[in-house]
Amino acid sequence: MEKNREIRLEKILHGGDYNPEQWLDSPEILERDLELFLKADINVVTVGMFSWSLLEPEEGKYQIDWLLHIIDRMYQNEIYTILGTPSGARPQWLAKCYPEVLRVNEKRERNLFGGRHNHCYTSPAYRQKVREINFFLAKELGNHPGVLLFHLSNEYGGDCHCPLCQEKFRSWLKKRYGTIEELNRRWNTTFWSHTYQCFEQIESPSSIGEMHLHALNLDWKRFVTAQTVDFALQEKKAIRDAGCQKPFTTNFMGDYDGLNYRKFKEVIDIASWDSYPQWHSKPEPQTALETAFMHDFMRTLLKKPFLLMESSPSSTNWQEVSKLRKPGMLHAASLQAIAHGSDSVLYFQMRQSQGASEKFHGAVIDHYAGEDTRVYREVCQVGETLAGLSELAGTIQKPKAAILYDTENRWALMDAQGPRNVGLPYNETAQKLYGGLRRLGIDLDVIDMEDSLEDYRIVLIPMLYLFRAGIEDKIKFFVENGGIAVMTFWSGIVDETDACFLKGTPGNLTDVFGLRQMEMDGLYDKEENTALPIEGNSLSFKRSYTCQKLCELVKVSDAKVLMTYEKDFYKGLPVLTCNQYGKGKAYYICADMEQAFYDDLLEAIQKEANLEKPLSYIPKGVEVTTRESDEAIYLIIQNFNPDSVDMTLPLQEYTIIYGENTQKLAGFATVVLKKMKQ
Amino acid sequence: MEKNREIRLEKILHGGDYNPEQWLDSPEILERDLELFLKADINVVTVGMFSWSLLEPEEGKYQIDWLLHIIDRMYQNEIYTILGTPSGARPQWLAKCYPEVLRVNEKRERNLFGGRHNHCYTSPAYRQKVREINFFLAKELGNHPGVLLFHLSNEYGGDCHCPLCQEKFRSWLKKRYGTIEELNRRWNTTFWSHTYQCFEQIESPSSIGEMHLHALNLDWKRFVTAQTVDFALQEKKAIRDAGCQKPFTTNFMGDYDGLNYRKFKEVIDIASWDSYPQWHSKPEPQTALETAFMHDFMRTLLKKPFLLMESSPSSTNWQEVSKLRKPGMLHAASLQAIAHGSDSVLYFQMRQSQGASEKFHGAVIDHYAGEDTRVYREVCQVGETLAGLSELAGTIQKPKAAILYDTENRWALMDAQGPRNVGLPYNETAQKLYGGLRRLGIDLDVIDMEDSLEDYRIVLIPMLYLFRAGIEDKIKFFVENGGIAVMTFWSGIVDETDACFLKGTPGNLTDVFGLRQMEMDGLYDKEENTALPIEGNSLSFKRSYTCQKLCELVKVSDAKVLMTYEKDFYKGLPVLTCNQYGKGKAYYICADMEQAFYDDLLEAIQKEANLEKPLSYIPKGVEVTTRESDEAIYLIIQNFNPDSVDMTLPLQEYTIIYGENTQKLAGFATVVLKKMKQ
Amino acid sequence: MEKNREIRLEKILHGGDYNPEQWLDSPEILERDLELFLKADINVVTVGMFSWSLLEPEEGKYQIDWLLHIIDRMYQNEIYTILGTPSGARPQWLAKCYPEVLRVNEKRERNLFGGRHNHCYTSPAYRQKVREINFFLAKELGNHPGVLLFHLSNEYGGDCHCPLCQEKFRSWLKKRYGTIEELNRRWNTTFWSHTYQCFEQIESPSSIGEMHLHALNLDWKRFVTAQTVDFALQEKKAIRDAGCQKPFTTNFMGDYDGLNYRKFKEVIDIASWDSYPQWHSKPEPQTALETAFMHDFMRTLLKKPFLLMESSPSSTNWQEVSKLRKPGMLHAASLQAIAHGSDSVLYFQMRQSQGASEKFHGAVIDHYAGEDTRVYREVCQVGETLAGLSELAGTIQKPKAAILYDTENRWALMDAQGPRNVGLPYNETAQKLYGGLRRLGIDLDVIDMEDSLEDYRIVLIPMLYLFRAGIEDKIKFFVENGGIAVMTFWSGIVDETDACFLKGTPGNLTDVFGLRQMEMDGLYDKEENTALPIEGNSLSFKRSYTCQKLCELVKVSDAKVLMTYEKDFYKGLPVLTCNQYGKGKAYYICADMEQAFYDDLLEAIQKEANLEKPLSYIPKGVEVTTRESDEAIYLIIQNFNPDSVDMTLPLQEYTIIYGENTQKLAGFATVVLKKMKQ
Repeated sequence: MEKNREIRLEKILHGGDYNPEQWLDSPEILERDLELFLKADINVVTVGMFSWSLLEPEEGKYQIDWLLHIIDRMYQNEIYTILGTPSGARPQWLAKCYPEVLRVNEKRERNLFGGRHNHCYTSPAYRQKVREINFFLAKELGNHPGVLLFHLSNEYGGDCHCPLCQEKFRSWLKKRYGTIEELNRRWNTTFWSHTYQCFEQIESPSSIGEMHLHALNLDWKRFVTAQTVDFALQEKKAIRDAGCQKPFTTNFMGDYDGLNYRKFKEVIDIASWDSYPQWHSKPEPQTALETAFMHDFMRTLLKKPFLLMESSPSSTNWQEVSKLRKPGMLHAASLQAIAHGSDSVLYFQMRQSQGASEKFHGAVIDHYAGEDTRVYREVCQVGETLAGLSELAGTIQKPKAAILYDTENRWALMDAQGPRNVGLPYNETAQKLYGGLRRLGIDLDVIDMEDSLEDYRIVLIPMLYLFRAGIEDKIKFFVENGGIAVMTFWSGIVDETDACFLKGTPGNLTDVFGLRQMEMDGLYDKEENTALPIEGNSLSFKRSYTCQKLCELVKVSDAKVLMTYEKDFYKGLPVLTCNQYGKGKAYYICADMEQAFYDDLLEAIQKEANLEKPLSYIPKGVEVTTRESDEAIYLIIQNFNPDSVDMTLPLQEYTIIYGENTQKLAGFATVVLKKMKQ
Repeated sequence: MEKNREIRLEKILHGGDYNPEQWLDSPEILERDLELFLKADINVVTVGMFSWSLLEPEEGKYQIDWLLHIIDRMYQNEIYTILGTPSGARPQWLAKCYPEVLRVNEKRERNLFGGRHNHCYTSPAYRQKVREINFFLAKELGNHPGVLLFHLSNEYGGDCHCPLCQEKFRSWLKKRYGTIEELNRRWNTTFWSHTYQCFEQIESPSSIGEMHLHALNLDWKRFVTAQTVDFALQEKKAIRDAGCQKPFTTNFMGDYDGLNYRKFKEVIDIASWDSYPQWHSKPEPQTALETAFMHDFMRTLLKKPFLLMESSPSSTNWQEVSKLRKPGMLHAASLQAIAHGSDSVLYFQMRQSQGASEKFHGAVIDHYAGEDTRVYREVCQVGETLAGLSELAGTIQKPKAAILYDTENRWALMDAQGPRNVGLPYNETAQKLYGGLRRLGIDLDVIDMEDSLEDYRIVLIPMLYLFRAGIEDKIKFFVENGGIAVMTFWSGIVDETDACFLKGTPGNLTDVFGLRQMEMDGLYDKEENTALPIEGNSLSFKRSYTCQKLCELVKVSDAKVLMTYEKDFYKGLPVLTCNQYGKGKAYYICADMEQAFYDDLLEAIQKEANLEKPLSYIPKGVEVTTRESDEAIYLIIQNFNPDSVDMTLPLQEYTIIYGENTQKLAGFATVVLKKMKQ
Repeated sequence: MEKNREIRLEKILHGGDYNPEQWLDSPEILERDLELFLKADINVVTVGMFSWSLLEPEEGKYQIDWLLHIIDRMYQNEIYTILGTPSGARPQWLAKCYPEVLRVNEKRERNLFGGRHNHCYTSPAYRQKVREINFFLAKELGNHPGVLLFHLSNEYGGDCHCPLCQEKFRSWLKKRYGTIEELNRRWNTTFWSHTYQCFEQIESPSSIGEMHLHALNLDWKRFVTAQTVDFALQEKKAIRDAGCQKPFTTNFMGDYDGLNYRKFKEVIDIASWDSYPQWHSKPEPQTALETAFMHDFMRTLLKKPFLLMESSPSSTNWQEVSKLRKPGMLHAASLQAIAHGSDSVLYFQMRQSQGASEKFHGAVIDHYAGEDTRVYREVCQVGETLAGLSELAGTIQKPKAAILYDTENRWALMDAQGPRNVGLPYNETAQKLYGGLRRLGIDLDVIDMEDSLEDYRIVLIPMLYLFRAGIEDKIKFFVENGGIAVMTFWSGIVDETDACFLKGTPGNLTDVFGLRQMEMDGLYDKEENTALPIEGNSLSFKRSYTCQKLCELVKVSDAKVLMTYEKDFYKGLPVLTCNQYGKGKAYYICADMEQAFYDDLLEAIQKEANLEKPLSYIPKGVEVTTRESDEAIYLIIQNFNPDSVDMTLPLQEYTIIYGENTQKLAGFATVVLKKMKQ
């Protein structure tokens, strides 16, 4: 595994996806684009992603001049290029000549040509054709000084169930389990008499075959990630083989469920993602919180600055309702990415296409291409702000708190037939815990079970149903040595092949948390219970909080009970417990609680952990984030309320490098402060 | 293209679909039917539609005596026959011998035998077999004096994706675009690298292939219409070739989305349709309005009287709830068809079948076949009324207003990924505009972009997203010469291959309307805005109106602003504008408005246009319609409220030829007035 | 047809499904299981159902020692074994070697291996392999004294559309109808020109073929039942051929729509079923009523005690929300089965599996296997109670009332396109009628049209759309001879091949009920009407009741009208009528009425019929049931309210054999009383 390469820039990237191949016949349009780019402080464009048909109109016959010309043209104007490999959408001729490249769905039907991402990641023919075009691109353009970064494909995703993939899946399983007996044991195939006699009998999950062998489902998802990573590595190798040493990225789709993005660490040099929050559908601070969570997820991947690769400068066109962003929203959302560690604000798309399915998606330049559009003016304003914040580029965050949010856990958790088969609140619980600390201005890493817990003082553990990668030992060691762990209901139920722990749950951690899980009650949507504080509890909790959806019944051994259920037959049983273990503490939350509970709990825990807050008081709906360099500390303060809030800036310590000095922070306004390290 | 043939009758047709082939073994039932027909003033029946199995029980072996006998029998009793061709449901042997006749769905699965309409319109085998049976029927029965009209197939519809259709689609495209390069350009296939290298690569849209190339989707729908028309022409040719010169019709399905019925002008001599409104689910006046719109659509097709081909004398049996029609409803609904230009009231069905899926569908004669049923008595009453209104047969309407409601526009509009991907209010907006004039008693044509605007003083243009057939020039010419155009938001966005206009929208009409569209805001269902009148606006509007779903933001050049948004960031931007252009006026409505807005606007515009109203005052829920002959003018007044309304009839000018002379028009009552032309 | 064999036990069975094959490598777990079984008074386990892979790991190579060992072990500890045949889940090798055994779905796609019940019941290969394993099992274990009963397969269900099944279906039809002409006539295939020329043209219903030929749909369902019964008989034969004479059962799925369980009378010696009510989602008394209905259905099958084969000792894991049962609920639900004639309380499952899809389904022993779980303690309590009620085993019920609830009627009724195509209240109406008598403590049989009416004084007939098996004559004879029939709307519409009666409906019973059905109004969900009492009606009804969903309009000949509609155009038409016919009475209910109507009506009718109530007063939510032996009568009183109710026990006549002597019956409490017969 090669070491991550760095892109070091003295500025924050501003630009986005650009498709000049759609306008080669209209040079005046390309001319106009450049003019508008420069006015808006655009310094990078992403090209090539959907150009395969133009780059190789017939098999083996390449034409590259047009692209070289674009890159040259941009570079002459101090605009860098991010060069996409075109594997995300293959040309028609390729599908006709090599039908094996088309994807087969879970019902075992081979797709026709069409859409994007409609290809088999296993197909040797597809891999070979991708290698050839990548090699060619890298050789011809890879060392161009204007090319900043290679962008592998586009939004990798989906799976293929063709015979080639089945075969590959079987070898992957063979490698993982060694013998069919071991696989049978781990997958518990005796259930419903599903014992496999040999690996050749294994088929990927299918609605016309097996759907309920959860370990099979889980391993299939792992395989799909592994195979996609392998495909990406092949893409990368072609470029390296052509003698190009530029760094790599690929754009992730935030919360996309189909891939475990953490497995791409060896593929990419810098993480990047496509952020499309539905602003104005919920209260903005809530949308901001959910988006921040994903930014932190992406930053934590390589624990260094990432890129916001796509965002809409206006509405999208694929949600049920395409809502315009209100004035200031684009600016606030763009700076939020920076606040959480992005070194870029990039858009999809620079110019609207004239036809096909994304012609009404928001763009920097619309069909009319006027400078008088509101969107263009707001993009210019973002460009101007970013140009003034160049010194933030490359600065980092060093959180002392983390939240465990694990993709493989999510796969297993959501697939299980369990206490609630609709509306299991995994993301919600993670966001509530995360929000409880974030509202205090405390930065968090979003880690998974393969990460180390060493750097943290607080670790939040929502619904960690599946344990793997030695997480039990890590948690035990973490608490023993003074850490504070906060775990919720429905954690520690199964091992990494979805087999239940037999010796009490949470598996191997009953001593750390000082309790054992007994039963789990699913609540109907109309039902709720209440958590009441125990008189004189260690956190001095006085009020009660609502519980919904899931109420776990635990039996305490050593833990102290802080809150109990108000009613139902489990009235008086614990809702919140705390166990002193070694030098640390292990909190356990038994029920799906309202946000206020998490807010109050985490404020108390933050004090207990002596975790420093950047500001003593933060109004509701205001986000405070910290980035730092070797020399300085930056505080980014953003008001995600549409209206202004009262706010005293800490100007004894900090100086303002962006934004207004005011006692009232306007709606959607941002202030950036700086102080030098001693 | 042969000239339309006329059916000239001295009376209004009354009758419907009749399936005597189901009862050939029970002559007493056929006897009873005739007896009941005569008592109910039935003068026409439609037969033969689903008789193929009986007409040709084995390939090439025909039996026709039973049908000839029926036609004779009816004719002897002064009942005409409409003769259906049996292509809507093929016999089992045909599907077994020629599997290619069975339809292939969009997932490329060939259907089994079953249902109706389950055949490929392209298949040479099917065309040949249909030709043979049609030829035979026409030869044997076509010139029978009792046969009034040929009815082609039944409710043409659906599409087929078999290899034969694919091939035909490709030649159709080749003919349309000439070269693959031109097709690529017009379809914007550079997007997502979809460039076709040759026509052979083109596949019809499919959920396992391409779904998002909107120009492909649109052309596929056009092709399906073209191919269906071609099939219908072949059906017709067989009959002409057999020496029969009778006129033709085929029954349309109202608002059916799968076909552009306007392309059938060369197929039919008289338009006809099947009307199944869900009476009593909404307030009756609203259902009446929606039904009237479709009647006018059908009348406008050939701009002459049409036929109401099917309607239920009672409930249907395929809606979620089969609601009975309340007393009087059948009579009112039947006369509404006449009011809007129908020369018939026909039912599906004359007698309920004993088994299979339509045995509980309403019928003139039910399983018991008693005369004491409410339905039968109400049918008799309709028959009596129609017999008294014979002079209306052949009279016409001459509207001075029209609404542009274009099927190809609807296809493109609803398929686009745009400002709202659910609940785009196309039909609703059309109906609101239409209703605004209709409540004044003003008749409208329902035209499409291929029609001329010459005859009109007011043209209503709801959501005309796609421009084709030179509509821009027609609108410009129309306004320049004194017409009043009323256009709404989301008009003039794309050209006929769904490619966006680049030089400002509404495309090529920014000068006529004096504005340019800038942005479109999709509102969530819970959201709304308000339109406020500008002080001293030219229409003297005083009140405010609610906007929902879509709010367009425009930049006015020459237009006068009449109303503005009350709130959101576009507070103060125009909601309603008017531009004087040449001798006419061009109104533009920016948002999805409530009905009251359209009512008030169109009342004002009607005055501005000096369009004469038939009555000075029309109560809410009352429909007033005009038919005329060379000699006389008829006014049909219908109360669609369940309760009576106060109403003064204009008896100085008119005389009553049907209905009561009263100051109170009873619920569901109809009055027909007549005055002679000077 | 062999005579039913009896299992005569001196005790009530307590136990359930046990899968020791999952734990053969962990003898300490099997040890622990036994220990826990004994403490909980477990006396029977069901094994072998999903063991095929282990019993025959390769074709023809059997291993049985492990199972023999389990049976021995259990028997030594006085625990019986119910031995399952393994046909419900075939091994992988079988599907690979004989692909024909995999099921083909209605779209004609052959399944992959996976799930359960994924096999063709027709396949000769599957039948042969099942025969071999059954024969082997029976030979080796069938005469073991510990084996109490053979359990055929598991939850037979589903259908297969493979070519083998198509062929079988055609011969089944040929046998049923003789000639294709007769089939055409009975199926009314002239409709839509569907006439079959030969049996070979017939295909099972399919969404890509024929869906709307209702007689085809109905006969397909009949065939599926016939073929499943035939398969089960083959299974049984293999066991008999091996020389085993033990009795048989198979577990039914309550209200499962796919099979007509009454056709299994010749297969089973004792009926058994799997009961999974969703306790705590509705008010408990309502859930209790619905469950009681199914218990009575099962008891009526062979008119002798049945077995509760599966029930969850805690929550299930396949409903949307997995709700825990509140304390006492398990006990009450278990005794309810006994009250309605079960001789067992069996659970799914004895121990939770470690992996796969049912690992979180409730079980007697959970993953931790502690004795301190609430569920285990409650199971022990049930065990103790059952041990004390041994004398109830083998006692029976002798109802004087019955409700006609016919599976074939349901198939036809729900498939028809009729007055309401959503929400047709068949089960609801049946339960309301049933509940009206049950709340008086009167036991009912749940019979179908093939049953005799001879033993009853009252017969309830909800929505008997389809008449077959001479039901008209039975009803006529029943009423003539003094019975009281209570029939509802939408009865007697079609004959057994879904063809409408032509001479007035209810078919052949217009004289018995003294009326003719005229029209049926479907009401929208928001609509309702009211039934008003006629002054001086024979039942002395004073109040009015709400009608919803369906209102039938009838024309009375001889019947007396008791209630009429309050509004709509059918105001004044009958809602409730009564016709004296012979020595009996025929009540007819025209509309979908609220429960209170049924309660009041049936209380009046019970008095009229002089049907004895077991108690003079029964509080709401309390169930009273009677079982009897030759010597004694047992009264089971259960309070299904969560709270206690006032209740005086009839202790002059009865003695308490279980439960507390109290004036207040606690929530979910049960009392069992006994009196000796004179």
